[in-house]
Amino acid sequence: MSKQENTNKHFADRLLDAISDKGSPVCVGIDPNPSMIPAEFISNDPTETLDGISRWALSVLEIVAPYVPSVKPQIAYFEALGGSEAFAGLGVYDKVVTRARELGLIVIGDAKRGDIGTTAAAYALPHLAAPNAPDALTVNGYFGADGLNPFIEAGNNTGRGIFVLVRTSNPSAPSVQDFTDASGKRFYEHIAELVAQVGDGDECIGSCGYSNVGAVVGATYPDEARQLREIMPQQIFLVPGYGAQGATSDDCAASFKHDGTGAIVNASRSVIYAHRRDEFKAQSLDWKKCVELAAKEFANDIAQAVAAK
Amino acid sequence: MSKQENTNKHFADRLLDAISDKGSPVCVGIDPNPSMIPAEFISNDPTETLDGISRWALSVLEIVAPYVPSVKPQIAYFEALGGSEAFAGLGVYDKVVTRARELGLIVIGDAKRGDIGTTAAAYALPHLAAPNAPDALTVNGYFGADGLNPFIEAGNNTGRGIFVLVRTSNPSAPSVQDFTDASGKRFYEHIAELVAQVGDGDECIGSCGYSNVGAVVGATYPDEARQLREIMPQQIFLVPGYGAQGATSDDCAASFKHDGTGAIVNASRSVIYAHRRDEFKAQSLDWKKCVELAAKEFANDIAQAVAAK
Repeated sequence: MSKQENTNKHFADRLLDAISDKGSPVCVGIDPNPSMIPAEFISNDPTETLDGISRWALSVLEIVAPYVPSVKPQIAYFEALGGSEAFAGLGVYDKVVTRARELGLIVIGDAKRGDIGTTAAAYALPHLAAPNAPDALTVNGYFGADGLNPFIEAGNNTGRGIFVLVRTSNPSAPSVQDFTDASGKRFYEHIAELVAQVGDGDECIGSCGYSNVGAVVGATYPDEARQLREIMPQQIFLVPGYGAQGATSDDCAASFKHDGTGAIVNASRSVIYAHRRDEFKAQSLDWKKCVELAAKEFANDIAQAVAAK
Repeated sequence: MSKQENTNKHFADRLLDAISDKGSPVCVGIDPNPSMIPAEFISNDPTETLDGISRWALSVLEIVAPYVPSVKPQIAYFEALGGSEAFAGLGVYDKVVTRARELGLIVIGDAKRGDIGTTAAAYALPHLAAPNAPDALTVNGYFGADGLNPFIEAGNNTGRGIFVLVRTSNPSAPSVQDFTDASGKRFYEHIAELVAQVGDGDECIGSCGYSNVGAVVGATYPDEARQLREIMPQQIFLVPGYGAQGATSDDCAASFKHDGTGAIVNASRSVIYAHRRDEFKAQSLDWKKCVELAAKEFANDIAQAVAAK
């Protein structure tokens, strides 16, 4: 499928098609942390290291593309790769997004942007509206509807989508997101209702019945995920927390509907840094082989857990 | 003051010193929107436009530096300036930050970053820890303490600080942030308590008594600001919403203590795009003169309102 066709089709439909093609609802996070990448790509010269990290990231895309429908570059790690030239790593981010889309992968830019409306419109330009933007963007909903709408409009206009933070996967999440009103409703449920509402327009809903406006729901909180599945029937859940963050495939299954649709599970460190995992180290495998085996294992593990639901 | 000395001193102390030197607690937002910038800087060639916008932004710094202690480049507008090369505008952001610090201005990078701890640590690197990083960064607190701590540590280690979003200035803010618990506490107050708590460590508090961990409190909600002043006695408030967003200087004064300290008020469009304001257009003034007059007027207006408190 050419890029042009890609972006004329509805985001939710494209994502479900890609999941169906690859047979598993999974996403590999591309988080280039220089202290974790195989040593052969790292040099004392920052420019060489930037080039090495670029080669590593593009290789990871080629390795995982046969097994997974989606990748999620985490822009923080690219912003941090600068050396003498600040933000030079975003050139690598741009290459990763472009190459992943050429490989037919659905690219979720993990940038968690959020601001007042005028500023959100500025963010939407490079992160959703530009021809070389990713297929979707993670967004922070703290500003409410007027901060989300510019992202939603940009997505609808270009066949792209967003995932709004609802329940994050980190240990401190409950201390903020479990704040509860007099009726027993928690703050993350309040945000979930907002997401369901802003994503409900006709132009948001694809022929698959899902919206261009999805939600981030951490796998580390499966009870909350089951409940959020009820509040947001039309939202695709982007589910972080599997692997290095401790959630199991059964925890992840809580975010899916009984027909096996409705979510996509992300793993980052456990796949891309598989060469550091004891079980692979013990086999003295090449880093590429480790990534391939980890990606296959991840895709199978999630597909089985969802099928058993 | 050299950069080295700059970053060895406590952020809160540096900010209060700068405010005292210039005589007004104000900040000018640097939001390079190509459709608002004087036409002489804009070309059909994206590379020339990028160069023009860089010249415009650096001129704005020189014009406002005698009158204001601080500037706040909004990174969204720089991310949006790419042309054929994605994110090329961040080179301009870097130049603006560096030049503003050379001019003795306190630079608040308005990037509203926020993520889980490992990712927050990656963001903290270019946005707070790097030698050419701004003096402070705006941060989103949705992840709770473990998402804030890497930013706070990076700030404490380098004489820099953060401003956590508490009450934003946009119209939709109440729909999310006024979510209320059984005791009548609203969600933004809950976040304010978190900010007061994570900013309370000895290493956070300067000799002025204020913390490196500040709060964003919109001027458009003065009643809420007065109440937040009680919850966060050690926080410096970064106060957006004056001018184009509709808040008056009296609204802004609500964020200050009775001694006239404790906040810094931001204006962006009403100052940097003053050449578009009817009262300046009527006088047929050069755009630079408009920015200068608007910056002086803004600094005086806020200084008077705070003194009258």
